[in-house]
Amino acid sequence: MDNNTIKLSSNTVGKPIQCRAAIARVPGEPLVIEEILVDPPSSHEVRIRIICTSLCHSDLTMWKMKDFPGVFPRILGHEAIGMVESVGEGVNEVAEGDIVIPCLMPDCRECVDCRSTKSNLCSIFPFKISPWMIRPETSRFKDLKGETIHHFLFVSSFSEYTVVDIVNLVKIDPEIPPNRACLLSCGVSTGVGAAWRTANVEAGSTVAIFGLGAIGLAVAEGARLCGATRIIGVDMIPEKFEIGKKFGVTDFVNSKSCGDKSASQIINEMTDGGADYCFECVGFASVVHEAYACCRKGWGKTIVLGVDKPDSQLSLNSLDFLHSGKTLIASPFGGLKAKSDIPDLLKRYMDKELQLDEFVTHELGFEEINKAFDLLMEGKCLRCVIWMDK
Amino acid sequence: MDNNTIKLSSNTVGKPIQCRAAIARVPGEPLVIEEILVDPPSSHEVRIRIICTSLCHSDLTMWKMKDFPGVFPRILGHEAIGMVESVGEGVNEVAEGDIVIPCLMPDCRECVDCRSTKSNLCSIFPFKISPWMIRPETSRFKDLKGETIHHFLFVSSFSEYTVVDIVNLVKIDPEIPPNRACLLSCGVSTGVGAAWRTANVEAGSTVAIFGLGAIGLAVAEGARLCGATRIIGVDMIPEKFEIGKKFGVTDFVNSKSCGDKSASQIINEMTDGGADYCFECVGFASVVHEAYACCRKGWGKTIVLGVDKPDSQLSLNSLDFLHSGKTLIASPFGGLKAKSDIPDLLKRYMDKELQLDEFVTHELGFEEINKAFDLLMEGKCLRCVIWMDK
Repeated sequence: MDNNTIKLSSNTVGKPIQCRAAIARVPGEPLVIEEILVDPPSSHEVRIRIICTSLCHSDLTMWKMKDFPGVFPRILGHEAIGMVESVGEGVNEVAEGDIVIPCLMPDCRECVDCRSTKSNLCSIFPFKISPWMIRPETSRFKDLKGETIHHFLFVSSFSEYTVVDIVNLVKIDPEIPPNRACLLSCGVSTGVGAAWRTANVEAGSTVAIFGLGAIGLAVAEGARLCGATRIIGVDMIPEKFEIGKKFGVTDFVNSKSCGDKSASQIINEMTDGGADYCFECVGFASVVHEAYACCRKGWGKTIVLGVDKPDSQLSLNSLDFLHSGKTLIASPFGGLKAKSDIPDLLKRYMDKELQLDEFVTHELGFEEINKAFDLLMEGKCLRCVIWMDK
Repeated sequence: MDNNTIKLSSNTVGKPIQCRAAIARVPGEPLVIEEILVDPPSSHEVRIRIICTSLCHSDLTMWKMKDFPGVFPRILGHEAIGMVESVGEGVNEVAEGDIVIPCLMPDCRECVDCRSTKSNLCSIFPFKISPWMIRPETSRFKDLKGETIHHFLFVSSFSEYTVVDIVNLVKIDPEIPPNRACLLSCGVSTGVGAAWRTANVEAGSTVAIFGLGAIGLAVAEGARLCGATRIIGVDMIPEKFEIGKKFGVTDFVNSKSCGDKSASQIINEMTDGGADYCFECVGFASVVHEAYACCRKGWGKTIVLGVDKPDSQLSLNSLDFLHSGKTLIASPFGGLKAKSDIPDLLKRYMDKELQLDEFVTHELGFEEINKAFDLLMEGKCLRCVIWMDK
């Protein structure tokens, strides 16, 4: 598909656009494709036509969540690529026709954090799980009865058109295939970034990855690029090992068949004392504890990527922690800065360094979006890309 | 005092030495100075005549502890300096007459950890709170009735003579005043190292230190040497601020008079979002939580130095942790490698970079050792140096 040939109708500028969106109306029930109205962008906002979108576990989590931050009706979806249809006041960074990736992590490029090389947490527009746009806490969506529809992660890509704040938007090279580029919006970036930016995995080191979903495999890919020589994958599904090998996974621990031992005990034995870096990519505090238990005493780093329930606690024995010499690191969005690191990763893909093709196990048309939910729930897919015009 | 002029009687080599030691016989009751017998060193061990010793909070903690690892009778003391009286088989690193500092942290110089620049946790002789020598788990002390007396932290310096494994011994320049050099055995090294080695405090940064005892003040000294521009001390005793100023503390938070706020809230306000590095030097999990709460979102590091009770848990909300971008780091012995870093720090003292004089608030003779315990408990002293021959 040649993105450059798509013509946007300029008579939509400044007016609401009527289009199709897949709406989550009831927790856990199939999305409903309906006609909605998408407002024109306000100041600092951009309206984009979604080209493709992929499905991430956070979409599933929020789709099922009955209580806040679960809200309904809502347009889910936050991994995507699109073309700029129109821009609001004060937007100079992108223009009509540009190809862009929306990103849940704001990058204002102006605050002390966005200007710092040490942080990727914008302090003017802090990341949060909100049902609104990031700047004015309002919605740009309503259904044809006039009911407000909520946003998700500042993106809401399960719609033919969406409105995204410029701080949540990254302009990219239009030559990059959209069904690959969209993966960089969230999951793959998070995994690769956690190994590359947060942990800064040393060449020759040993890595353990708990959870071989797309994020965990992206950690493997990042660790492979950094030169890790041993990459141990931990998962309950043995088939994941075969997939993992494509991303550099060298060893596999089936956490469901460890016998009397825990996965961490097995890894401690395999590595004679623990891995140099352990990544938690499942989203359970208990798995963080397991990862921590098999990271190497003296220098081991446990990197937390997985999103657990709001009331879940990480709990480490104080004295053991002190005597371990270990480090526990949070890696929100893999420590990446959206506007500089996403284009960099995409360049690495185009230069055939970074593997993205292998993450896309399924591609569907927009009408089949509920099938993508099923595939992800069944553990049968890494990333399912949904083409909006198919 | 000129250490080089002290003559050791060579006729003691290979024989037990009868000398005085301050023995902890009953938890929390005054030490009793008694004559004891100190065995000659076994293989890899060194018998040393203690020149001076200082008192650290761990001595107090273990002196009061009724249950294991509290054991009695025991010779406490682990910050010291001494002269080698004789060496056991296989010891080539030091010889009779050398001036040495015993150190609780083993440094074998041979294992993967001791050879690595990343770890200070010897893997052949792991640190533990043991009542014995580190290699054969036996004692070198008995009283005149033949009862075994236990060791403490592989040092037991409250004795005119003690036996220490070569992995727990550091040879130093004999020109360094012993009442300064002995501080590097534990507390001051731990604090300076935590700022210098573990955190690697960046010039121009802001540091918060919870607890302005000797370790906390040593963190301040380390942070000052690293070029931190703002050093916030937190303590319940306002007088500590005056002492702290000598070590570069620029701001003070009295944790006892924060009103409705917590110390972490006040620090977050003072620093507009938190300190770059927060050090816990008290030894309470609750204080680790406070330190973590006021380290800067996006890049803040919380460094744990304090020793809490064995059953105490660090507990952090999983989701908050992930979204914080923060790091929690354990700093056993300040991340220092005893045999290379202690001589380096002592050189910095001789070069008038590192301040040590200000840590010594009291000096006493050996007979007054119980007074040193009182001073430390009353919070009136940073370090009390005890001269064995006075």
